Amino acid sequence: MKTGGHKILDCTIRDGGLVNNWDFSVDFVRDLYDGLSAAGVEYMEVGYKNSPKLLNATEPNPWRFLDDRFLQEIFPEKKATKISALCDIGRVDENDILPREQSVLDMIRVACYIKDVNKGLDLVQKFHNMGYETSLNIMALSHVHEHQLIEAFEAVNQSAVDVVYVVDSYGSLDPKNTEHLVKKFRALLPNKQLGMHMHNNRQLAFANTLVGIDNGVTFLDASVYGMGRAAGNCHTELLVSHLKNPRYELKPILGIIEKHMLAMREKWEWGYIIPYMISGVLNEHPRVAMALRSSEERDNFTAFYDRLTSPETVDTLVKK
Amino acid sequence: MKTGGHKILDCTIRDGGLVNNWDFSVDFVRDLYDGLSAAGVEYMEVGYKNSPKLLNATEPNPWRFLDDRFLQEIFPEKKATKISALCDIGRVDENDILPREQSVLDMIRVACYIKDVNKGLDLVQKFHNMGYETSLNIMALSHVHEHQLIEAFEAVNQSAVDVVYVVDSYGSLDPKNTEHLVKKFRALLPNKQLGMHMHNNRQLAFANTLVGIDNGVTFLDASVYGMGRAAGNCHTELLVSHLKNPRYELKPILGIIEKHMLAMREKWEWGYIIPYMISGVLNEHPRVAMALRSSEERDNFTAFYDRLTSPETVDTLVKK
Repeated sequence: MKTGGHKILDCTIRDGGLVNNWDFSVDFVRDLYDGLSAAGVEYMEVGYKNSPKLLNATEPNPWRFLDDRFLQEIFPEKKATKISALCDIGRVDENDILPREQSVLDMIRVACYIKDVNKGLDLVQKFHNMGYETSLNIMALSHVHEHQLIEAFEAVNQSAVDVVYVVDSYGSLDPKNTEHLVKKFRALLPNKQLGMHMHNNRQLAFANTLVGIDNGVTFLDASVYGMGRAAGNCHTELLVSHLKNPRYELKPILGIIEKHMLAMREKWEWGYIIPYMISGVLNEHPRVAMALRSSEERDNFTAFYDRLTSPETVDTLVKK
Repeated sequence: MKTGGHKILDCTIRDGGLVNNWDFSVDFVRDLYDGLSAAGVEYMEVGYKNSPKLLNATEPNPWRFLDDRFLQEIFPEKKATKISALCDIGRVDENDILPREQSVLDMIRVACYIKDVNKGLDLVQKFHNMGYETSLNIMALSHVHEHQLIEAFEAVNQSAVDVVYVVDSYGSLDPKNTEHLVKKFRALLPNKQLGMHMHNNRQLAFANTLVGIDNGVTFLDASVYGMGRAAGNCHTELLVSHLKNPRYELKPILGIIEKHMLAMREKWEWGYIIPYMISGVLNEHPRVAMALRSSEERDNFTAFYDRLTSPETVDTLVKK
């Protein structure tokens, strides 16, 4: 199935913030917005709409705890690119959300694990009632069984949600199991738009996204130069250069990379790095690899591999 | 079509030598051979079997101009991993080649452009008569028209060559046109084994190789940590971790990366680098991007993109 009408959702600020604790300057975020708009990218995710109170935050972090007044200062004039925010169930205070017509945000996305889909849908319904486009991003799908999906999707089909996302949190999917999963989503959610959010642990984020496109996915998450947690995401510049829509222009994205991303990549680490490859291959959360990269053992790949594949470690990981 | 029986051919020394002018220590090459053997990799390509005289070489370069006596010193005892060399038509002196039973080499591969297939097959026949396994590696396929393939393959089918390679010299293929090309090769060469040699300009070398596997390709070129010209190749560690053959072990490859490749990557440059992405997207030879990377303009991506997409530049490139 090929539907066309793809939309790229750039999540450089939101997912990239997991790399640098959202240490993005206002100038960078504005440059990124202008560049994405010039490139024809349809959505930019500017951060998390979580609550500093609920997360016991002790320091301000504007892109992690998006505030509507702040957003209005940053984006006094919007261009064609819509603006989205992500929130996690249990971490968002609904009273923080203004009706869409008073907000810079166009879309609010809700991330949850499969067991919390109903809680996610409650939030989606509230945001939908306030006028927002909505999505439900079901994380860690490589650990989810088919019967869990079938059960959860009954409620999803009854809900107001616009887009349902296939999220490869662990970067463990390959093109074949991506195709299998997307076809299952397509069959079980006949009236919803589908999205995908891939991680690049095995250098397959772009290829998996292409598989999604061929199977009816329309919302394509990506980040400029792949900036995102651990191995990062599908690269926005690869999608923009590949998709045939005449609206897309590669050059503005190259400009952002040239002006900002090379220096940022020197300062912060993401991308194809062996411990992330290993956690992807083993279908593990990247947190073990992120901990390794913050330690003095950061380049001890064989010892890390031994640890993750020894029977004792499996016990520890299961118990965690 | 799925045949199983894949063979990984690691070309770290040969293709990686295009990055560092074959500046590999004997210790590294021996460690690599031991590691690839322990990992179950079937072939290691140790360099080029070209002639220093024919290339007017002024300095010794043992991995570029392989010599049998030298190879016997380096590999006094062979393990399960076979050893191959590549040569280019017009650059190899047939008198330099010993019969296989006197050589460390098991396989000689011949690289050529489509117009030179008959010259390539002449060489293949000679190496075949001397007892070697042979392959014909047809370069720059993304610029070849179907009628040229059909014409050339009549002679290939009549020849003694064991393996015919799909070579994506420019790193411009995506999984769809890779599938198209491999299916064409499979249909036109019913009695030959197929190989593939992908470049990683668009982060698709691994994904394209997976497409090849699903369509009957058995010889899979790769290099450790992707080390190869410009954007490099499909990563050996990704193939070894993915293929289901119980012979494969990831850990010895991780050991090579940990011990050698991180330091080598600090010293020499290959991989996903924006000018190589641009040349791949534009289906151009990477030499323009390699020249840029050697200049002071190395990070001026937008100017490079402008130059490659302006009508004047297209004229220059066509004339070159």
